[in-house]
Amino acid sequence: MRVQLIGFGNIGQGLAHVLLKKGNSLKKKHGLDIKIVSISDITGTVANDKGVDLKRALDVMGKTGKLIKYPGAKKMSGLEAIEKIDADVVIEATVSNVKTGEPGLSHMLAAMKQKKHVVTSNKGPLALKFKKLQSTAEKNGVEFRFEASVGGAMPILNLARNCLSGDEVLAIRGILNGTTNYILTRMLKEESPFDIVLREAQELGIAEADPSYDIDGIDTASKLVILANAIMGADAAFKDVRIQGIRNITPEAIKLAEEGGYAVKLIGEVSGSHLEVSPRLVPLNHPLNVEGALNVATFETDVAGEVTIVGKGAGSIETNSAILSDLIGIRGAERRKRQ
Amino acid sequence: MRVQLIGFGNIGQGLAHVLLKKGNSLKKKHGLDIKIVSISDITGTVANDKGVDLKRALDVMGKTGKLIKYPGAKKMSGLEAIEKIDADVVIEATVSNVKTGEPGLSHMLAAMKQKKHVVTSNKGPLALKFKKLQSTAEKNGVEFRFEASVGGAMPILNLARNCLSGDEVLAIRGILNGTTNYILTRMLKEESPFDIVLREAQELGIAEADPSYDIDGIDTASKLVILANAIMGADAAFKDVRIQGIRNITPEAIKLAEEGGYAVKLIGEVSGSHLEVSPRLVPLNHPLNVEGALNVATFETDVAGEVTIVGKGAGSIETNSAILSDLIGIRGAERRKRQ
Repeated sequence: MRVQLIGFGNIGQGLAHVLLKKGNSLKKKHGLDIKIVSISDITGTVANDKGVDLKRALDVMGKTGKLIKYPGAKKMSGLEAIEKIDADVVIEATVSNVKTGEPGLSHMLAAMKQKKHVVTSNKGPLALKFKKLQSTAEKNGVEFRFEASVGGAMPILNLARNCLSGDEVLAIRGILNGTTNYILTRMLKEESPFDIVLREAQELGIAEADPSYDIDGIDTASKLVILANAIMGADAAFKDVRIQGIRNITPEAIKLAEEGGYAVKLIGEVSGSHLEVSPRLVPLNHPLNVEGALNVATFETDVAGEVTIVGKGAGSIETNSAILSDLIGIRGAERRKRQ
Repeated sequence: MRVQLIGFGNIGQGLAHVLLKKGNSLKKKHGLDIKIVSISDITGTVANDKGVDLKRALDVMGKTGKLIKYPGAKKMSGLEAIEKIDADVVIEATVSNVKTGEPGLSHMLAAMKQKKHVVTSNKGPLALKFKKLQSTAEKNGVEFRFEASVGGAMPILNLARNCLSGDEVLAIRGILNGTTNYILTRMLKEESPFDIVLREAQELGIAEADPSYDIDGIDTASKLVILANAIMGADAAFKDVRIQGIRNITPEAIKLAEEGGYAVKLIGEVSGSHLEVSPRLVPLNHPLNVEGALNVATFETDVAGEVTIVGKGAGSIETNSAILSDLIGIRGAERRKRQ
């Protein structure tokens, strides 16, 4: 399987680490022989028809932060790499942009038109143009997989599609953003105000310098749109979500809730055609009440009742669990086609 | 899809209810046209090549508790039905027997030899003869699916196999028995001794008249063996599990644990080649700490880290979520073969 990696930040470098560590076992166990034929970041592209030297690429990034410093790297953009280099799969792992979807959206569409399967962790383009991406994939007869775009290592999409296939999903409720969960958990434990806990989280690298993407619910809303479209067959976009963040939550409110048997969590909910992100009371003994930076989602279904999945919502290594299972899924789909 | 149902108790009748309610939507959504061509219980068999009248069968069971009272029912055993009646799939849902595996074991082997796929909720035969069942299925080119045998509506097997396919599962820890979870939860909330809570659970129908199967860890151990074999490629049997139940747990011990930040739960654990069922301390804020009759399992994996799934471990309707997803899986496998 010839793979192009577009974006070589947190997740892309994590993939390189994972392949170095267990590439051989993937080959043995799944017959999945992943060869990274090119890596692109914003500075350039490294290509090698026999497989890029991943260890060297990681070294270069560790030392310089710029892929162009890799000996022999070209000033070729990700888009050019997709259009010019022969490959079976494009992994799109650039930074998410929920306003324009770019550059991920162009990368994905170009890859599909080149008859390349697409695997992505990049939610922006999906929150904006899900139907267009899905129909472009179908038209070009390629797979489009995005387990890593929601909930990181928590396999929420494949769970609904492969494990609850006989069920009708009536509603999904979840904590889809680890940063807000971390902040609300610390506010409860320390009885500290929002601003102080946020600053602490920023110092620890859990919250961004500009935290609004997380704490104002934008990240959760993007993921919610993907869930609604992919699992419940909706045709929703980011603008359809009613969003309220956690800036106004006080430690007093959290304390009061706890005394009543509840935790305050930023919950994304899709129920029928209603999409909402808002702080909610979750019973302390409900499986949705998970602490720290964990992600969680509860499916309400017609046959199984409530099914809940919990996992790490982020992580350079962890998120690649989703990317690997998508690659294995693509290999299965390709085999079925060939038969 | 021509299906034979062997066993018409809690789960079998639940399937009839589910098919009456959503048979049409399964046809529309998945192209899955399930026709129950025979139902057998211990009293006899009802067969109809055009599909048994499920509503009538439920009525007869509701009124008499004996399938033989169905007009036209024959004194034909489940085994004979499997051998004589033409079908694609056998659903084995008789009562589990962890000593001999019978009659389920003979039913499953006979079905496979008749080139019929097998779906089952019956853990006894799997805890005793997993490899034999698996190899018989392979030899006869049929599917063998048993999602309902562990954790009821909690899709634990398909989660590991389909959603964490790129991960190596290093260990599994879980509450696999709802009755013990209910009892331990009540002991905590009411500060009542084991005997009293057990009697209460028996009155509510949550614990059996002979409760040892649940509270002595036998049920959990059976499920653990299935997980070890199916997910971690072990060749384990019931006798390989170190088992300790919850009879000796006192409310004082539970109280003490809670003060220290822990809950006492009957945990089944498979880690490497070690299989153990025993009461364990679970941190109150860990996703494994679920209350009431819920089931839960945490996978420890090499890439994703910890992933936890929570769901209803039993239930006449709920468990059929697993049976439906297995039937849909078989249909997918058949299609792939035909291509």
